[in-house]
Amino acid sequence: MSRADFPEPIKELILCLKQLPGVGPRSAERVALWIYREGTGFSELLADTLHQVQTKVSTCPICGFFSQENGCALCNDTLREASETLCVVEQAVDVLALEKTGAFQGRYHVLGGKLSPLRHIGPEDLALPQLEHRLVDQGITEVILALSNDVEGEATSNYITDMLRDTDVMITRLAQGLPAGGGLDHADELTLLRALSGRTQLKER
Amino acid sequence: MSRADFPEPIKELILCLKQLPGVGPRSAERVALWIYREGTGFSELLADTLHQVQTKVSTCPICGFFSQENGCALCNDTLREASETLCVVEQAVDVLALEKTGAFQGRYHVLGGKLSPLRHIGPEDLALPQLEHRLVDQGITEVILALSNDVEGEATSNYITDMLRDTDVMITRLAQGLPAGGGLDHADELTLLRALSGRTQLKER
Repeated sequence: MSRADFPEPIKELILCLKQLPGVGPRSAERVALWIYREGTGFSELLADTLHQVQTKVSTCPICGFFSQENGCALCNDTLREASETLCVVEQAVDVLALEKTGAFQGRYHVLGGKLSPLRHIGPEDLALPQLEHRLVDQGITEVILALSNDVEGEATSNYITDMLRDTDVMITRLAQGLPAGGGLDHADELTLLRALSGRTQLKER
Repeated sequence: MSRADFPEPIKELILCLKQLPGVGPRSAERVALWIYREGTGFSELLADTLHQVQTKVSTCPICGFFSQENGCALCNDTLREASETLCVVEQAVDVLALEKTGAFQGRYHVLGGKLSPLRHIGPEDLALPQLEHRLVDQGITEVILALSNDVEGEATSNYITDMLRDTDVMITRLAQGLPAGGGLDHADELTLLRALSGRTQLKER
């Protein structure tokens, strides 16, 4: 007598779902059974949206943001065209995070990652030639480096600063310091060190 | 100027993924972007497995377990046919959990849920007529109630016991007590109470 087990198609679905980020074996099983019980309607909807995403969304060859049938929303924005400031980020979602603040209305450039020798990501894997091209082509005067505040982000910032040394654009980076709502007791040493050295003056002596 | 946002197809995918159990808004975003970046290969594989699950797997009309093209693995098992013991569980996954123990080799009956007035699940929503029919049809002499150890599981056990009062089958339920590896300090009062009242004799006086 053989022990009862999941049917083959459900096993395949579990294997597939386990590949998703943040989905372990247990939750893959739970999600697969939920999908099976939910019936054809949901499965067809999900399959269709997957198809839409893969056929209708692409990466803008100029700025690296999402592009659709009607082109890239950022590159087609006539108001952004007037801006001489270019904000360099790692990934397309970083653009959305900055957009939510409403504090920046210039152009963006998505690198598609950060330098990481451990994960075999070198300068040739990032959209750096496109960046250099845009500086000239679009008359950029300031490049804001909005990369993550870790060793790899720092290395990428240094690399770009070095790369653009002979151009006449200003290069800035995001401020480092205490995060909003964070007390001193929750900040790590490095954050405090940088908050101290980057302190701003409130009153002259 | 409009704020940049996710392209419509990615938003749809996020909405779709948010419906899955245990997937919140943040992880739906993360998974959707991962799927987009992974490219067509993965999306097509996932869409195909979804289709397989919905077309090749169904619920066995006799026992309620998974059924495939070649029928239900449990009902087709000639060795189980010899058994006169029927184990009643809530859902198909419960069968798999019991199968892993290797301790039961009889027949199973999947109710498809448990009585729950709060979620509007009444006796008419469970596979109870099928259960009654099988008792006669398959010459069952013992029914093991392997339902969850909560108020709803208990209510369902009571309902079934009541329903089968006039038949000549024996009805048993799973033992209640300390879980394996659990110390007394981690057991709740009710568990301890039941472990005490269900104590087994090791030596006669």
